[in-house]
Amino acid sequence: MSVLETHQMAVKDSAAYANLARAQHELEVVTSINRLVAWDQETMMPANGTAIRAEQLQYLSGLVHERATDPKFGDLISACESETGLMGDPIIAAGIREARRDFDKATKLPRDLVEEIAKSSSLGMVAWKDARAKNDFSKFLPALQQTVDLNRRKAECYGVADGGELYDALLDIYEPGMTAKRTEEIFGPLREGLVELIGLVEAAPEKPDLSVIGQNFDIDAQKAFCADVCKAAGFDFDSGRMDLSTHPFCEGVASGDTRMTNRYRPDGWAESVFTALHEGGHATYEQGLPKKELSGTALAEAISLGVHESQSRMWENFIGRSKSFWQWGLPLARTMLGDSIPNDLDAIWKAVNVVEPGFIRVESDEVTYNLHIMLRFDLERAMIRGDLACSDLPGAWNERMKNDLGLTVHEDRVGCLQDVHWSMSAIGYFPTYTFGNLFAAQMWAALGKDLPDRDEQFSRGEFGPTLAWFRDKVHQHGRRYGAEELCEMISGSKIDSDFLLRYLTDKVKRVYGM
Amino acid sequence: MSVLETHQMAVKDSAAYANLARAQHELEVVTSINRLVAWDQETMMPANGTAIRAEQLQYLSGLVHERATDPKFGDLISACESETGLMGDPIIAAGIREARRDFDKATKLPRDLVEEIAKSSSLGMVAWKDARAKNDFSKFLPALQQTVDLNRRKAECYGVADGGELYDALLDIYEPGMTAKRTEEIFGPLREGLVELIGLVEAAPEKPDLSVIGQNFDIDAQKAFCADVCKAAGFDFDSGRMDLSTHPFCEGVASGDTRMTNRYRPDGWAESVFTALHEGGHATYEQGLPKKELSGTALAEAISLGVHESQSRMWENFIGRSKSFWQWGLPLARTMLGDSIPNDLDAIWKAVNVVEPGFIRVESDEVTYNLHIMLRFDLERAMIRGDLACSDLPGAWNERMKNDLGLTVHEDRVGCLQDVHWSMSAIGYFPTYTFGNLFAAQMWAALGKDLPDRDEQFSRGEFGPTLAWFRDKVHQHGRRYGAEELCEMISGSKIDSDFLLRYLTDKVKRVYGM
Repeated sequence: MSVLETHQMAVKDSAAYANLARAQHELEVVTSINRLVAWDQETMMPANGTAIRAEQLQYLSGLVHERATDPKFGDLISACESETGLMGDPIIAAGIREARRDFDKATKLPRDLVEEIAKSSSLGMVAWKDARAKNDFSKFLPALQQTVDLNRRKAECYGVADGGELYDALLDIYEPGMTAKRTEEIFGPLREGLVELIGLVEAAPEKPDLSVIGQNFDIDAQKAFCADVCKAAGFDFDSGRMDLSTHPFCEGVASGDTRMTNRYRPDGWAESVFTALHEGGHATYEQGLPKKELSGTALAEAISLGVHESQSRMWENFIGRSKSFWQWGLPLARTMLGDSIPNDLDAIWKAVNVVEPGFIRVESDEVTYNLHIMLRFDLERAMIRGDLACSDLPGAWNERMKNDLGLTVHEDRVGCLQDVHWSMSAIGYFPTYTFGNLFAAQMWAALGKDLPDRDEQFSRGEFGPTLAWFRDKVHQHGRRYGAEELCEMISGSKIDSDFLLRYLTDKVKRVYGM
Repeated sequence: MSVLETHQMAVKDSAAYANLARAQHELEVVTSINRLVAWDQETMMPANGTAIRAEQLQYLSGLVHERATDPKFGDLISACESETGLMGDPIIAAGIREARRDFDKATKLPRDLVEEIAKSSSLGMVAWKDARAKNDFSKFLPALQQTVDLNRRKAECYGVADGGELYDALLDIYEPGMTAKRTEEIFGPLREGLVELIGLVEAAPEKPDLSVIGQNFDIDAQKAFCADVCKAAGFDFDSGRMDLSTHPFCEGVASGDTRMTNRYRPDGWAESVFTALHEGGHATYEQGLPKKELSGTALAEAISLGVHESQSRMWENFIGRSKSFWQWGLPLARTMLGDSIPNDLDAIWKAVNVVEPGFIRVESDEVTYNLHIMLRFDLERAMIRGDLACSDLPGAWNERMKNDLGLTVHEDRVGCLQDVHWSMSAIGYFPTYTFGNLFAAQMWAALGKDLPDRDEQFSRGEFGPTLAWFRDKVHQHGRRYGAEELCEMISGSKIDSDFLLRYLTDKVKRVYGM
């Protein structure tokens, strides 16, 4: 029986389950309004709409929180938990388990802490923007200190398992079930392998010629090209949109309504395509979740940020930076943008796969990207532990950049002030980016076995079978399985950095002709 | 003391008033979310977002209704009403009077009737679209009958004054204080004058040459032209947007956030400019209301649909169709669109002022437009009175079209099925369009006295002094004055169709060279 059929039967058979499903759907309606209003703020809102928008969003978050923590909601979950008929079905039990998780997470934080965090995030953003603009870490330090303090308090509210540490409770928000220790175990060998790989690249005699993707093109033409690429990848424009924003993002507003954004520079056409594929990967996941039929239940939601990121990195890197993708994409780009792009598949493919240590995480390549993440993981964990004073962050950051990437940071704005996350009170978020890459590598290997002629398909612009595979293996399940559990089901092994390292080593060797 | 100062002092001096102001602002926050979500539905929402959007809007309307009818809200108003200090100030008293009006209106309707009307509107729209597509009135008849029945029930809930009729209570929703009898008194002489004017036009030896505005232009160029025209008229794009929609509209979402829409056809550039000016007129009114400082109070809201329409018709017709406007607009159009538009001011001006009886209200000219409205007023009033059976509507419509405009209606889709209003349960709405024209004509006369060189200004693209005049005379007051009261303050006379008739006669004579 499918997830949907199982759910429908449970709704019919159990009044408790039907009541919970109704309450979950009602909560989804309110939450989806909040998402839409937040999306509008980043894409459509005129400059002078800011003041009342903050009040609208504050009101909506309050409404969502109030409903999500309503004791009656908890009672509905308890009623389901006490029905053995329900709990005996693995699908239904998973949904109820996740509903319980969300409810407990939401109710464990006292309201005053929630409000303090909200206020601190809002002020932290302002302080961070100012500090970054002025390249002055001292202007951000008080906000950072508060972020660390509030995150410690938050972690204490959530509680720590035996043998665990506070950071675990934070990581668990974004990557349920993950711990700092396990992350360290996974990241250790990955880091070694990556550093070795960078050595290999540095020793390579020839470097890709970046000028082959350096042309200037009309923004409207770039938009049309990106839209066509996303359409080919399976993004359904009848169930979504692609707009402009300063920082690209994807918001699964509601059933049938997934909105992603992109940004363009006249000389950044290749970058825009990869951003479109990245957000498009998030978006196809959102569109593949059974949000209509299972609205508001955990079975209609994404598992974790890591799994979400696996979908975006899959389309951006594994597919989008493959040579077979560009067999199809290059002629299309030359038609839609202009034939000043050289008709040289090999050169284009090498250019979009260059490996080059740099200061900025979001501009970094597939190999160095994860080193940026590990640095952040270690430093934020040390701050939560109290092993690193916030005031010592720039020094620690710069030392690590020197060690890992061989770069000397002269300005904090391209160092520890570059990311928004800490200003938004998000600690424990960064590692999910690397988990995304790790999951993607394991899925990529499994996909290769199931679809042995995927390269031929990509070269013809046929991405349907690949998307169908992800629909089947990942999207349809919602939160039925945990992230690492799903990873193991798909790839036959728990998280293992060998997959990613093998994939990267193979690519680096081919790109750099070794 | 200004309205704002008066308000701020009252907030300081009276706890009751401060409490009411806070509750009004909170209601405004919720209402503004509802408006934003509704705007998104018409402009941005992907096709498959429909189902959950209906639920979002239903939820938000329920929330707004719940708060607007909360007995505690009524108590706050009562508390203010019992403070003689507050009620002694004409500005504050006006705000409280209007808050009372809204609260009483909202609470007079029982919840089941509100829901029945909402459901009937929603089903009525579907039936109307189907009937119009199939050109089959019988498919709309049951919905129309229900609209009439529900509107009678609604009017009974609101109650009727001595000597009044049910229709008054409906008209009063959209045009507070107006009655059917007074409307009849005003429309009578206007109708006679217009019929006479049409006779004059038909006898005219020469007709404007419409081909001078018949060129095809790129839609993006048209958008840019319309945006520049609206900017010149004073629309502030930092506090608003202009987007696309099937049916153009303007939504004052919130303080600092007024959104209008337009539509474009390759061969419809002139039409698009007038639509932009029309919606721009609504939009500058919204932007001129003191929404930031007096958020949620009646002093920050538009007086009536008629006064709102006066602002749109002012910019669309009185200003936008003046020769001096085109002295500035024609060179701009030729630069921004193309010089296939002939450099013949007189010919362009005549073409945009052609008078020609037609079947469709929204396509009709300044002269015949009001005859379309009067027809609707008489027929909907007769249906509410029970003097006209809904099944007899097509016959009555067609007879009246023949009499007033000399046209034989062969298809109901260009006859009584053309407008959406009755399907949406809106009866009493149509007359406000003509009140808009009447108010505009009286304001136009007053503006002419205060700004004797407005034509020279328009010819240079200077609309600032005109907008400032409307800010001063209309916008800043919110709902402090009633519509006819304000009209009299501005023009020195109550509603008097002579103003509109003189303006139209003068223009027709000049356009048709008589």
